Amino acid sequence: MTQCDDTIFHTARDALMRTGDTRVWSVIVTIFGDLAPDPQDQISGTTLSDLTRMIGIKPEAMRVALHRLRKDGWISSEKSGRTSSYRLTRQGFEESLAARPRIYATNAGRPGQWHLLLREAQPGASRGKAQARELAPGYLMLMDRVFLGPGRAAGDQGGFVIDGSAASVPDWVKNTVIPEDRAQDYVRLYQDLQAVQAVVQDAPQLSELQVAVLRVLIVHNWRRCILRHADLPDAFFPEHCPAVACRALVGQLLAWLQRPALTVI
Amino acid sequence: MTQCDDTIFHTARDALMRTGDTRVWSVIVTIFGDLAPDPQDQISGTTLSDLTRMIGIKPEAMRVALHRLRKDGWISSEKSGRTSSYRLTRQGFEESLAARPRIYATNAGRPGQWHLLLREAQPGASRGKAQARELAPGYLMLMDRVFLGPGRAAGDQGGFVIDGSAASVPDWVKNTVIPEDRAQDYVRLYQDLQAVQAVVQDAPQLSELQVAVLRVLIVHNWRRCILRHADLPDAFFPEHCPAVACRALVGQLLAWLQRPALTVI
Repeated sequence: MTQCDDTIFHTARDALMRTGDTRVWSVIVTIFGDLAPDPQDQISGTTLSDLTRMIGIKPEAMRVALHRLRKDGWISSEKSGRTSSYRLTRQGFEESLAARPRIYATNAGRPGQWHLLLREAQPGASRGKAQARELAPGYLMLMDRVFLGPGRAAGDQGGFVIDGSAASVPDWVKNTVIPEDRAQDYVRLYQDLQAVQAVVQDAPQLSELQVAVLRVLIVHNWRRCILRHADLPDAFFPEHCPAVACRALVGQLLAWLQRPALTVI
Repeated sequence: MTQCDDTIFHTARDALMRTGDTRVWSVIVTIFGDLAPDPQDQISGTTLSDLTRMIGIKPEAMRVALHRLRKDGWISSEKSGRTSSYRLTRQGFEESLAARPRIYATNAGRPGQWHLLLREAQPGASRGKAQARELAPGYLMLMDRVFLGPGRAAGDQGGFVIDGSAASVPDWVKNTVIPEDRAQDYVRLYQDLQAVQAVVQDAPQLSELQVAVLRVLIVHNWRRCILRHADLPDAFFPEHCPAVACRALVGQLLAWLQRPALTVI
């Protein structure tokens, strides 16, 4: 292995840690989701310690998070002599799998299809956002009794379904589905990803562990943006919200920073 | 001219006059719209008297209605010796022309296209049906801030336009756009049109004047149903509302009862 460029790594890592409000258990979920997504994939305790330490997570915080994830049935652990190893449980695998399409989709591969669901007025029925909780996941309230759903409507949602087709989406609709603070999250993420792109694009020599850390941080930051709102067709993102540009850059960076095999981390 | 069958005429006419709440000026509008639709078409006072008398309108009521329509700028009159003749004014022609597509459309010729218009919430803005008045004509309120419009949206309505495409329209939407009393109007009309069909289909010998009277009554009754609500795509009529069947039967009857030339009435 050639000599590693720590300056480049630190620049990229610090850009991705700028916002700095990463919850430890959530980072570990990202680690498994990106580096050990299958139930047979194992990560050793040593590797987990190295990865989290490089993200600034204290050993004690990691142990607490691992304990919580085991208790919640997300991961399981095995002890072999002095070393522990961890893997996703069936439940952890399935929840991780469900989120993958949204996190790893490319812009080209995203369906533009959406639909509206209009619900009947019901006396004494829940109002506002509480209505959405009665619907299948993925619906987003545009206005009272009107919901935006991804793809085509699945089954009978008990409403009036209109397959989406619109020449343009007005700003007030975009600002309804992506509030301003969500849009600003994407603005910050795009800046951070560009900072990473600037240092990584000269194909620097990074260690496998450094590559793994950068991948985890990229996926984690992206995941925190994209999974925070319903699966919107690209036409619904406000003009100043660079979600589509972020998705392109995430894809490019993950292609550059090829996932290292766990055995060599 | 062959002998006329008064029994058949009276049966058909009485069926069409069953509901009997015909306003005289409105019947005269129908007479011009169907029998003298162009500004150069003239109807003599004698012909108008014959037609309205056969519909059960008293001479005095006809004179009052003609006076009102002249005053409103719908028709103009000319005197030549002892006889008067009447024709549509430019305004009367244009208003009549605007309604023709909906009255005389065939089921096959009707566009299935529709669209939804979602309006932005505005503080202090009008609520409910008052919102529709701020829109171009032809919109029908489905729910607060949601409107159904015919065809494709014309120009900028200041809202979120979604071209209509739906696998099915649920009953509560149909019952919103066609209230029960409107649906019952169609049920009665369909019965009446079938009664006319039953006697007229044997190609009876009717006088030109009788044909004209039946046409006027058919168009008038149909017009009173179809122009009483927004121009709905057929998919939006409730199951028990035979509007589409009525349209087919109106077309068939008007084809059988060919419009007589005014000079021979």
